[in-house]
Parts: sequence; structure tokens; C-alpha cells
Amino acid sequence: MSSAKRTEMNPDLQKERDGASFNPYSLTCLLHAGEENVERKRELERLAFDDPELQHEDLSFLSRDERYTLGLKKTIRFLNKCWDLDITGIQDVNTYRRAVFRGMLEPLSVHYGMFLPTLLSQATEAQQDKWFSQALNYAIIGTYAQTEMGHGTFLRGLETTATYDPKTEEFVLHSPTLSSAKWWPGGLGKSSNHALVLAQLYTQGQCYGMHPFIVQLRSTEDHTPLPGITIGDIGPKFGFDEVDNGFLMMDHVRIPRENMLMKHSQVLPDGTYVKPRNSKLAYGTMMLVRSYIVSDAAQSLCRACTVAVRYSCVRRQSEIKPGAPEPQVLDYQTQQYKLFPLLSAAYAFYFASHYMMDTYFQLSGNISQGDLSQLPEIHALSAGLKAFTTAVMSSGIDTCRMACGGHGYSHASGLPLLFANATPACTYEGENTVMFLQTARYLVKCYGASKTNEKLSGTVAYLSRVQTAAVSGKGARDLLDLEELVGAYQHRAARLVGMAANQLQAHTKAGKSPEDAWNSCSVQLVKCAQAHCHFFVVRNFVDTVRTADVDPASRAVLTTLCQLYAIHGIIQNSGDFLEDTYLTGQELQQVNSHLASLLAKVRPDAVALVDAFDIPDEILQSVLGRYDGNVYENLYEWAKKSPLNKSQVHESYHKYLRPFLQQNRAKL
Amino acid sequence: MSSAKRTEMNPDLQKERDGASFNPYSLTCLLHAGEENVERKRELERLAFDDPELQHEDLSFLSRDERYTLGLKKTIRFLNKCWDLDITGIQDVNTYRRAVFRGMLEPLSVHYGMFLPTLLSQATEAQQDKWFSQALNYAIIGTYAQTEMGHGTFLRGLETTATYDPKTEEFVLHSPTLSSAKWWPGGLGKSSNHALVLAQLYTQGQCYGMHPFIVQLRSTEDHTPLPGITIGDIGPKFGFDEVDNGFLMMDHVRIPRENMLMKHSQVLPDGTYVKPRNSKLAYGTMMLVRSYIVSDAAQSLCRACTVAVRYSCVRRQSEIKPGAPEPQVLDYQTQQYKLFPLLSAAYAFYFASHYMMDTYFQLSGNISQGDLSQLPEIHALSAGLKAFTTAVMSSGIDTCRMACGGHGYSHASGLPLLFANATPACTYEGENTVMFLQTARYLVKCYGASKTNEKLSGTVAYLSRVQTAAVSGKGARDLLDLEELVGAYQHRAARLVGMAANQLQAHTKAGKSPEDAWNSCSVQLVKCAQAHCHFFVVRNFVDTVRTADVDPASRAVLTTLCQLYAIHGIIQNSGDFLEDTYLTGQELQQVNSHLASLLAKVRPDAVALVDAFDIPDEILQSVLGRYDGNVYENLYEWAKKSPLNKSQVHESYHKYLRPFLQQNRAKL
Repeated sequence: MSSAKRTEMNPDLQKERDGASFNPYSLTCLLHAGEENVERKRELERLAFDDPELQHEDLSFLSRDERYTLGLKKTIRFLNKCWDLDITGIQDVNTYRRAVFRGMLEPLSVHYGMFLPTLLSQATEAQQDKWFSQALNYAIIGTYAQTEMGHGTFLRGLETTATYDPKTEEFVLHSPTLSSAKWWPGGLGKSSNHALVLAQLYTQGQCYGMHPFIVQLRSTEDHTPLPGITIGDIGPKFGFDEVDNGFLMMDHVRIPRENMLMKHSQVLPDGTYVKPRNSKLAYGTMMLVRSYIVSDAAQSLCRACTVAVRYSCVRRQSEIKPGAPEPQVLDYQTQQYKLFPLLSAAYAFYFASHYMMDTYFQLSGNISQGDLSQLPEIHALSAGLKAFTTAVMSSGIDTCRMACGGHGYSHASGLPLLFANATPACTYEGENTVMFLQTARYLVKCYGASKTNEKLSGTVAYLSRVQTAAVSGKGARDLLDLEELVGAYQHRAARLVGMAANQLQAHTKAGKSPEDAWNSCSVQLVKCAQAHCHFFVVRNFVDTVRTADVDPASRAVLTTLCQLYAIHGIIQNSGDFLEDTYLTGQELQQVNSHLASLLAKVRPDAVALVDAFDIPDEILQSVLGRYDGNVYENLYEWAKKSPLNKSQVHESYHKYLRPFLQQNRAKL
Repeated sequence: MSSAKRTEMNPDLQKERDGASFNPYSLTCLLHAGEENVERKRELERLAFDDPELQHEDLSFLSRDERYTLGLKKTIRFLNKCWDLDITGIQDVNTYRRAVFRGMLEPLSVHYGMFLPTLLSQATEAQQDKWFSQALNYAIIGTYAQTEMGHGTFLRGLETTATYDPKTEEFVLHSPTLSSAKWWPGGLGKSSNHALVLAQLYTQGQCYGMHPFIVQLRSTEDHTPLPGITIGDIGPKFGFDEVDNGFLMMDHVRIPRENMLMKHSQVLPDGTYVKPRNSKLAYGTMMLVRSYIVSDAAQSLCRACTVAVRYSCVRRQSEIKPGAPEPQVLDYQTQQYKLFPLLSAAYAFYFASHYMMDTYFQLSGNISQGDLSQLPEIHALSAGLKAFTTAVMSSGIDTCRMACGGHGYSHASGLPLLFANATPACTYEGENTVMFLQTARYLVKCYGASKTNEKLSGTVAYLSRVQTAAVSGKGARDLLDLEELVGAYQHRAARLVGMAANQLQAHTKAGKSPEDAWNSCSVQLVKCAQAHCHFFVVRNFVDTVRTADVDPASRAVLTTLCQLYAIHGIIQNSGDFLEDTYLTGQELQQVNSHLASLLAKVRPDAVALVDAFDIPDEILQSVLGRYDGNVYENLYEWAKKSPLNKSQVHESYHKYLRPFLQQNRAKL
């Protein structure tokens, strides 16, 4: 799977590239926010790929134990390299990281992804002096222990306790039940010697809710678990083989008072609890994490599309015309229908993640100046977008896998691993349904506010202009016009939000408690949140197409993709547009025929559109998706490495098969 | 995961069982076609579960090599047991097989699933004398080598050649290109010593298309590959770890003329080709295989639903009412919306598979009496149903997995393995899109025939009564009435078939070749085939509810499930019903509110409905789905067995982590 075997280009792929209507490099620059970023990315990638100490082993042939060990080894190499080569700055480090790990996961990702940031945002200066530089320099390794066996998304349900003992000025950390065992934190099982443990704080006989505590788990001498600590790996999972997701049970473990992170709330030596000044600041980190998830979702979908689109040009099958050569699979309309809407979604989500990142940094600036006004709106959007993009990404990777036929099912395609490692994003950092319901709660609140003539702004401003009455019959519409499409999605979202809000009200009026009413409408509420996110993604895609600094050919292909994204979404959700006759049946027929035209229009540019993602073979890790298209030769080379092929005759023959065959022959 | 740990029942599950409105045993008997079958099934299961020689190892903790070896060992034990205990008859053997293998796959399944049946149906009597009893007694082990690296579903594209040499009266088997390598056959890589190779037959300078040839692959003395044979394992896949799917390349391998299976076509010693008498007979086997796939799809979905529904009653999360205890996850409407439609689909597909099996046996009888009239209709239905049911099953298992939150992602849930092993059914035995298009071709043909007043019968009779005009406004409809629901699906299917046919005609009239026209409409054609299958499944479910020999309480719950299946499908495809105003927007609102009521109505019976599938824990292989609901204790017990927990301190600590930590500490 290395580029070393990239000799001659498969002629079918060469023809595709020669025939593209635009230069993919211009879209690469757009996706990576500028040529400078692209060149820097490529430079760092080369640095990693060419480094003899960073050569890659194919994970498919390794056991889980080997994969964990390799993950650890690679993490250490990577960190030492960063220090040696002086690679700093979050973007450079992340680019280099991706190039070093090549799709492999990192056992210590929670250390830098959660342990360090939480210390930074929630530790006092004195605590930072003590812990942060140790952690930054990997003199200690930490994880973030929040989720428990019996509780995930609902934080208030967590059972672990931290009880303050003023006599010794210590907290007693305890797992009162089996279901309170910390369960799932990455790096907890085997790697970490410290953890930030989230626990219910008890002092002076009262519970003050979840707070973070630094707990040492293992000896810094010999890594054995400390007294009172029961710790281990939670066992194999769908993916994440390299990560030692772990469990932790604490039996009255005592830690000094100073190990509670006290930047926001405090427990004084005598046990007095001091409230945090502002509890909303924690939302910032959550939004950043969710923005990263949107960006990861986009990139995972890009990878899957790259594999499926390229392979569909190399693979030939069946016949459209009798006697003619077998066509490329991508010439089948059904194949285009599977892949091109996902390709357009990958672009749409990429642009949505740009918006989220930009907004996050702008918002952080506002917040630091005391302006929290935009926080609820963007928080609601980030929750919904996280759910919306990961759901499409997860099922989309699976669609791409199946679009590659039998070979998609082989680990040689890279798609099973991509799916297994990417799909947890639908569950972690807030389960998707719960996320949609959070968004819905905000939307319904805004809808209510708009009824009392409160002015709404930003991404929810449109709710002030809700039109529940149908607006069809307003004459011939051009359903390829971008603003017309935005209008359709806006109408749908506004209508569905209004409907859910009214339904909620009806249930309450009929005597249900607000909670039961909410639960009774929750299917509709999820639906309205999805429609809101869908609208935002379309709106943002259209804005990007309009404002992007690209040449006309690139803008033309982006416009086509944007139309396809919107048109396909209308077809997938046609009932929502027909229900109130916003669209007529006849207009839907037009939409269907637009779809067929758009698929045909994307077809000649499909390979260039995935090339524009600029995912090197080393990171793509797919025999089917190779840039040079030399699939079959490399599929055979790959298969030969299968551990079952180490000997011509497998040892099980001697042990089991031979005696069995002999026994049976004797019976004849 | 054994039933040994089944001590006390989780009180939440006990309450569910106590509160059910019907006796699940009556549905168990309906699903298994009679009490006698259920008792026999349970007897055979006990026989396997209690056998000390058939105890089970958890696959999650084994390497692929270990799993292949275990698969082989277990296959041999299973066969010896069948012979010792005199277990015969296809149903008994299959029940016992399932109980022995417990979700594990069998490396030699192609031997009994394809090699033996093909010998039976395509070998002459003389050939059967020579090969069949050897194969039946496992004195030789065979596979069925059809698919090639470069060709799957499109059989005419296969490249392997078998050229007759009259001088020596031999066939020369040859793989002319890399892409002609046989690729994927189960058991080919390491286990089999013979194969039925499908190859293009050349004699007297002419090609006569695909024919089956018996080729010996490995020495019966020491299992080494014979001269000219290159053979091996194709490498790791998403699932199917126990199976050595293999590759095979032949370099001018000579086999005697008698090794071509000659029941249907023949090559005489001088090279004269003798045509088969009837080429349609082969369809019979294909239909049987597809009926089995429909049945397997139903059962896989049953397993996933059993896990998710039971776990959702044990798992408690969040709060509906402040201060109240955390509710069971299944009390959330959104969770019901994810799971209950799938539960209803599992029943629907089970009943559809009953229909397919019954029809297959009836049809076989007709065929043996020379009546082939029903063959095209049932062939088209079996292709479509295979695709329709496996697609819902595959994404349904994934939905169930995600509905179990984080723990669904652990192999302890059993769901990742179930998904990975079940999803290939979407691809093998005819890729799903190709299958739908086969069905569509038949439907369009029937539609055309109906236009010339030809009478259609059986499952397509309704196409004679196509109404493309809308029929709404005919007064208040009861959309919970089963016949009304059948009518809605019938209308939709007929309309979509008509629309696709008309579109096809329009493209042809506009000057496109029939092939290009077909391709240009293929998205619509797939859609009409799906609608046809959907209609069939609803129709058949309704018929089953009406005619089933069950008590009133069971019929009531079946009726609810059937309504839910149909109502949910209308919502999922609402555009199809609104487009021609067959349903009005107002009626769709009613349908939505019916859905909410039906979810609530299924809720108290959900556990009993999955219990009725009668899947023992030993086969379910899921900590989350245990019958006794003791999830958390057993999750912990399971995790402790993780290979990473063999030692408290993993060896990678000494090798990598310790030196790294020391280096970093020294720097501080």
C-alpha cells in the first residue's frame, strides 16, 4: 500500500483525470484554507512518509495485543520526532500526527485531547505548575475518566463519589457500585498512571455535583496499580484495537485536597464549598470538541468516497450494450446515485466544519470580552451538526463499502476499518439522538420567543419568519437555483420546528406534564432538529460556493455539487416538502429529473473531485483506492501477506483435517 | 456468556415478562411452524449445549488463525457427532449445527452448501457414483469456485478457461490473467482439496460459456497444492474470520474429460458439444439459496432486536421527570422509534421467508411435473426479496448496535460480530442493486403485458389494475385498517412500476438505445422493485395475521406489529404516497399520530415479542442481551478475560513506556 509501487497509472484513471473540467488543486486549496496550508501539509506528510523510523505495518495482519503495542511504540516515536524536529503549533502537529499514524488510532489520545486541555482550563495556576508541565512533557500520562459502566451521556447520573475529609484534608474517591466503575476512557486500561476522575463532590454532608479530581492510578516506579485501585482493559471492541479503553474501580482512595481542580469551584481546607463564578465557560471546550468531530466526519467521508469513486472507475462489470466492452462501474446510474450524493455531502460537511471552527474562534474572542450572547445558538448548532454529520458519515462509509462489492468487504479496501473506527462518533461526546433533542429544545424555545416578537439572530433568525401556510402555486420555480433551494430547506425547517412546538403545546394543554409531553413528541423534535441542521448545511454550502475565491471552472463544479446535495436531500425527504404542498407532485418529478442530470454532470469530474481531497495513499490505506489505480496486482500482493499463508499447508491440517479425512476414507 | 451464570432474573426484565399481554410461546410456535418443531429445536439445542465436547470459546479473544483452526476443529466434531447421534434430515442438522456453532462461521460451509448440491443436481449418475459419496462422507473436501478477482455478479464476464484437448481427452483449465484468479470462495484457501471450478468451455475452437469442472487442488496424501495450482487465503476481512476464503490460479492444469459435470450439457470424447435440454432448471437452486438468505436475514434481525430490546429495559438513563428514578431507556419514544419498526420487520421477514420456502417446495413439485409457468414470477420475487430483506437487516443491526449506546460497540454486545458476519448477504449471491434491477425488469415486462390485456397472476396480478390517477378525497379512511394499508402499498407499487415503465419508454422514444434508456432510469427502476417487495411483505404479513392459528391475545399483538410495520413504512416513504395525493398532508398527520400510539402499544409487549424468537443465550452470544438481564456483572466478568488483562503491567510498559517516562522525567 506504499507509493513505492506506484509505477504506471491505470489508463482508466488517467483518462478520468485528463477529462476533468477543472483543476483539483484549486479545490484542495479551498478545502485546506489556502495554498500555503496545502504546501505545508504536503511537506509534513513527506517528512513522515520518508522517515525510515516511521515506516508502517499493515494493521490488518496484527493481533490486538500487537496493535496496542505498536500504537504505544509509534506514539513515543511521534512525540520524540516532534521534539527533535521542533514541530509545534496545533495544526502542524495534527497534520504530522495524521501522517505518522496513517489511520491507526493512538492509545494516548485522551492524554493530549482531554487530560491536558482540562488541566489548562480547570486547574489553578499552582495546580498547573505542579501538573501541567509534567503532563505536557509526558513525565506522567493521564486519562479523563468520566463515563461509567451504568452511565454515559447523562452526567448527573454518575455515581462515583469524592467525599471531603477535613481531618486529613483529603478527598476519598470511591466507586460505590459495580455500575459506577469508570468504563471506556481511552488509555485507562494499561497506559495511564494518572487520571482526571469526574466524581460527585460531597463536603459537609452535601452533594455539589460533578467535579474533576486528579488521581494517581499506577506507581511511577513500576506501573503497578496503587492500593485501592482496580484497573484493566474493557476488552475488544468493533474497532479501536490500538486503544486500551479501560475500567477503574476505587475503594476509598485518598487524595490530597489540592488534587481537586479548583480554578472554578473550590473546597476550602475546612470543607467549605465555594461556587464557580461562571458555569457556562465549560461549553466552549465542548463546542471545540464537537467542531473537531464535524471536521473528522467530513474527512472520514472524504476517505470513503475517494476509495469508492476511484475503484468504481477501475472496476468494470457487466454490459450496458451487448458485445461492447464492460463499462466502468461508475457509468451505472445506480452507482452514481450511491456515491455522488455522499461526495457532495463530504464537501458540504467540510465547509460546515470551516464555519464551526471560524465561529468557535470568533466566539471565544467574544466570550473573553464578556459577551456570551451567541453561546446558546452556537452550542445548539454544534450539538445538532455533530449528530447530523456523523450519522451521514457512518452510514455513508457503509454505503461506499457496499458500492465496492465483495472487495469492499476485504480489509484490503480499508473501508471496514474506517467504518469501525469512525462510527463511534455517533455515540461519544453526546449520543446523537440526545444531541438532536438538545438542538430541538433550543429551536422550540426560539420559536416560542419569536411568537412574542422577540428578535432572533444568526442561524435561527429564519424562525421569526415561519410560514406554516403552503406557498405553492406561486408560478414556475427554478429548482436548480441555489437561493430557491435554500428557501425550500428553510421553509421545511421552519415548518417542522413550528409543528413540533405546536404538538408539544397540545400535549401540555391536554394535561401531560412538560416532561411527558416532551417525550411524546420526541420523534418529531428530532426530525425538526435534523431539518434545521440540513438547512444550515445547505445554506452554508451555497454561501461557500458564492464567496469562495476560486476560478470559474472550480466554481462551476462546486455549484453542481451544491445543487446535487440539495436536490438529493429533497428527494430523500420528499414527504416533508410535499406534505404542505410547498412542492407539488409535478415539481417533485422535475426534481427527480434534475437529479438524473446532475449525476451525469458530476460523472466526468468525479475522480478529480476526490483527488482534490488530497489524501495520500499512505493515509488512505486502501488497495482499492490507490491513486494509481493498480488495484488487482496490489490486491494479490496484499493477500499473499495474510498470516494464514505463512505455510502452504496450515498446521491445522496435520492436527485435525488429515486424521478426519483418513477416518472417512477408511469408511468408504 | 453461558447460561450457568443465570441465577436471579433482573427485576426490570421480570416485570416486563409479567406484564406482557400474550404468551410468547404461542408466537414461538407460529414462527417455527408448530409446537413439535419448537420442542425438537429445544431438544437438539440442549443436546449441543450440554455436550462437554462442544463447549464454546469466546471468539472475541482469539486471533484469526485461532478462529480458523477452531472452526475446523468444531466442524469435524460436529460431523462426527451427527454421525454418532444419527442426526439426519436437513432441518434437524441445521438446528443442531446452529446450536453447535453458536454464531461462529464454518470454514467448510461451501462444501455442504454448494459442492454437494451442485454434484447432486449437475453430475451424471456415473459421476455421482465416483464423487458424491466421497464428498458426502467428507473423504474429499470441495469448494465452489465461481467468483473471480475481476468478476462477480456478471457471470458471462468470467475469464477462466477450460479448453478441451481431444488428443488426450482432457480439459486444460487455465487462468489467463491476474483478474481471472478465482477469488473469495469459502474453504478454498487452506481447507479444500477439490473444487468445482466454473470456467468458459472451449471445444472445437468455440466458446460455449460457463460450465462446472471438478478440479483436484491439493494432494490427498499431504495436502500440498498440485502442480500448476497456485492457491492461498485472500487475507482478513470485515468478518468471516473462521473462513479461509481463498484464491486459485491454474496454469494449464489438465483434468480428465469425465471431470466436467455432464448431466445437462456434454462434451463427447471427440470434442462435440451437446447442448443442455433445459437451462431453466438451475433457477430452482438459486431460489432455494435466496429463500435461505431471506430466512437468515430475518433471524439476524431477530437476534439484534433481542439484544437491543432486552438491554433497553435493563439500562436506565437520564430523567423524564426531575427527581424521579431514571427511566428504562425503552421508555423513550425515540428509542422505541429506532427498535420497534425493526422488531416488526423481523416478524414480517420471518413470515416472508415462510412464504418463500412453501412456494419453493410447491414450485419444485410443479417443475418436476413440467410446469414452469410460475418460475419467472417467483424468481423475480426471490431476487427482490433477497435484496429488500438483507438491506433492512444490515442497516437494522447497525441501528440496534447504536441504540445500545457505547456498550453496543463492545464485542461483549455481540452486535459488531453479528453485523460483520451478516452484512455480506447484501453482496453475495447477487449484489442487491443488481437483484432489484432483475425484479424491475420482470415488473416492467408484466406492466407492458397488462397493457395488452394479458392476464397477470400471483404476486404481480395487481399490476393489471394499475391506477396512476390519484384516488384521494374518497372520504375518511381508517389508516389502521389492514386492507386499507395493503391498498396503499399496492397503489404505490403499481404507480411506481407504471412510472418507471413510462419513463423507460420515453427515453427509448427520445432515441436512446434500450440499454442506455434502461441505465438512465435505473434509479427509478430500483425504486419500483423496492416498492413491489415492500407491498409483498405487507400483504403477506396481513395474510399471516388473518390466517395464523393463534389465540386472540397473540393475534392482537401481531395485528399491532403489522400495523406498525405498514405505518412506519408509509412515514419512511411518505413522498411516494403524497406525490399523487393518494394520501393528503392531513392524512399523513394521522399516520404520524397512529405511529406514536402504536409505539406506545408495543412497549409493554416488547420483551415478550423478542422472547418469542426463542434464541437461547448460547446462540445469542451477547452480554447485553442475556435472558436474565444480569448485564453489568457479566460485562465485568467478560472484560476480565481480555488478553490485555493477562498481566497487571503490560509488557509494552517495560519495553517502551518506562524508558520514555524516565527520559521525560529527567528533562524536567
